[in-house]
Amino acid sequence: MRIAIDAMGGDNAPQSTVEGAVAAAQEWKDTEIILVGDQSRMAPFLKERPSNLTLRHTSEIIEAEDEPVKAVRRKKDASMVVAGRMIREGEAEAMISAGNTGALMTTGLLVVGRMQGIERPALAPMIPTLDGKGVLALDLGANMDSKPEHLQQYALMGSLYREKVHGVSKPRVGLLNVGTEPGKGNELTKHAYPLLEQLPIHFVGNVEARDVMNGVCDVLVCDGFAGNILLKSIEGTAGALFSLLKEQFSQSLKTKLAAAMMMPQLKNLKSIMDYKEHGGAPLLGLSGLVVKSHGSADGNAIKNAVRQARVAMQNRLVESISNEISGK
Amino acid sequence: MRIAIDAMGGDNAPQSTVEGAVAAAQEWKDTEIILVGDQSRMAPFLKERPSNLTLRHTSEIIEAEDEPVKAVRRKKDASMVVAGRMIREGEAEAMISAGNTGALMTTGLLVVGRMQGIERPALAPMIPTLDGKGVLALDLGANMDSKPEHLQQYALMGSLYREKVHGVSKPRVGLLNVGTEPGKGNELTKHAYPLLEQLPIHFVGNVEARDVMNGVCDVLVCDGFAGNILLKSIEGTAGALFSLLKEQFSQSLKTKLAAAMMMPQLKNLKSIMDYKEHGGAPLLGLSGLVVKSHGSADGNAIKNAVRQARVAMQNRLVESISNEISGK
Repeated sequence: MRIAIDAMGGDNAPQSTVEGAVAAAQEWKDTEIILVGDQSRMAPFLKERPSNLTLRHTSEIIEAEDEPVKAVRRKKDASMVVAGRMIREGEAEAMISAGNTGALMTTGLLVVGRMQGIERPALAPMIPTLDGKGVLALDLGANMDSKPEHLQQYALMGSLYREKVHGVSKPRVGLLNVGTEPGKGNELTKHAYPLLEQLPIHFVGNVEARDVMNGVCDVLVCDGFAGNILLKSIEGTAGALFSLLKEQFSQSLKTKLAAAMMMPQLKNLKSIMDYKEHGGAPLLGLSGLVVKSHGSADGNAIKNAVRQARVAMQNRLVESISNEISGK
Repeated sequence: MRIAIDAMGGDNAPQSTVEGAVAAAQEWKDTEIILVGDQSRMAPFLKERPSNLTLRHTSEIIEAEDEPVKAVRRKKDASMVVAGRMIREGEAEAMISAGNTGALMTTGLLVVGRMQGIERPALAPMIPTLDGKGVLALDLGANMDSKPEHLQQYALMGSLYREKVHGVSKPRVGLLNVGTEPGKGNELTKHAYPLLEQLPIHFVGNVEARDVMNGVCDVLVCDGFAGNILLKSIEGTAGALFSLLKEQFSQSLKTKLAAAMMMPQLKNLKSIMDYKEHGGAPLLGLSGLVVKSHGSADGNAIKNAVRQARVAMQNRLVESISNEISGK
């Protein structure tokens, strides 16, 4: 198993990526890790160098503020683009990047390439749920306007991912909608519903936004626009409530004391809501495995993304998706 | 000013509606209140009867679980439908109902009738913000699939409502979107953006879901599908966090003590998040004023809806919208 890591992507790169890569290479001897990036900038963090870790020097970097399509087209020697090219040319089966999300999706489309039969690859992060298990939501931002057939493919890919990578048997797949009854929704969801019913998956019907956090499904299917509204509303509301809570807790000596007494519980609460803790988000529907780590990923998060990629490869995720799509 | 109240709509009707109507009639002698409903069921709560309060007997009721279009078409003598007909026939200028939301929107469309030049009336509730002022969001559920021109009309109507009814000068109007830069979004929002720029309103550009609660705009424009996802995500996340908080607070004697110390602050927090407290939601774009009160409205909420309707009428809201729309 060969995994390319975009060493220059993310707020804490290359320290985070190098440390994560070294730790992963040490733990999994059967996996070849290729660090793709600027050698001179990686060197200070490369105190150890396991034999299954190799370097691939690149001279360019895609920055967080770069315009995705332009950056991917022009910066041919960017670490992210080179890692993507390694998948296309068979030098790696998977890549991990904590860099610019738009650029990574563009790299997926233009460099790695779509899987045959897939119209639109989808970004599939986890959304937090009260039971701590999370729900895989897709598409979360790769495609703003979807057709019913795209949602059908998302459902199939999401279900396979949960099964193969997270070990969920018969994942419950829900369709994000404005009501639970069939027939509810906009033109897109009304037409997608019967298509989801036809799939060999465990389709549990429409799911309302207010129920998502209650863990009523394992996979949530939506177009990129609605998914963005959902995810950012959850993020915004949680953030707003935490700041209100902080304000209320600091009103008097009494409330400050109460806050101190509650500190471990409040931290616990915050971690449940922190969807960053759920690991990297796969970009599904490409001819290889691409995992997006959070921009603020540290070494441990990068190592976790390697773990995730390994499980996906061991369980032949990409081949399974390809078989299901072509078998249709 | 004549306001018809659907006395039979809502979880607490007719007690809530009768009590609210009596209180409103007592406070505002210049306003004629017409209670529309079953006389024998209203009677027990009608201990007083101000001279500006009249009754209009109806024999049917639209229930919460009724299918909206069917119910409005078949139950010709339902309290909600009769109240709508009173607007159409000039017997009242406004109506208030805490009943079935779908049926009320249908009553608005089929009985009250659209304002000339308006393609789609919109439901415009308030969404809570951290500063306690709230943001008027439309459309929230009346229309699942919108065209850019509909969003343009929502923007105009929402801006006028905030100005005329809430006294906000130059309301900041934002477009719900997936990024703040112009050019972001799906086909709908990309095409709506330049149309909103053309309006004689204070358009502040795209607003991301995560910023809505920070009070970055006074009016938020969106299609009914995205609006529903936004509102229900906020509701669901707040509900989830409060239940997590409750769980964390009840873990031990120490945390229970902390909870007791924090009780006034926690109640305060809950009330900020409770968008029900922001009064009734207008259904804008009809030939008369229709206000939707929350299903769980009590007498006080009904009285507040009357207050809201009075202000709208005093400031000639419906005429202002009509003038702006026809002047285009």
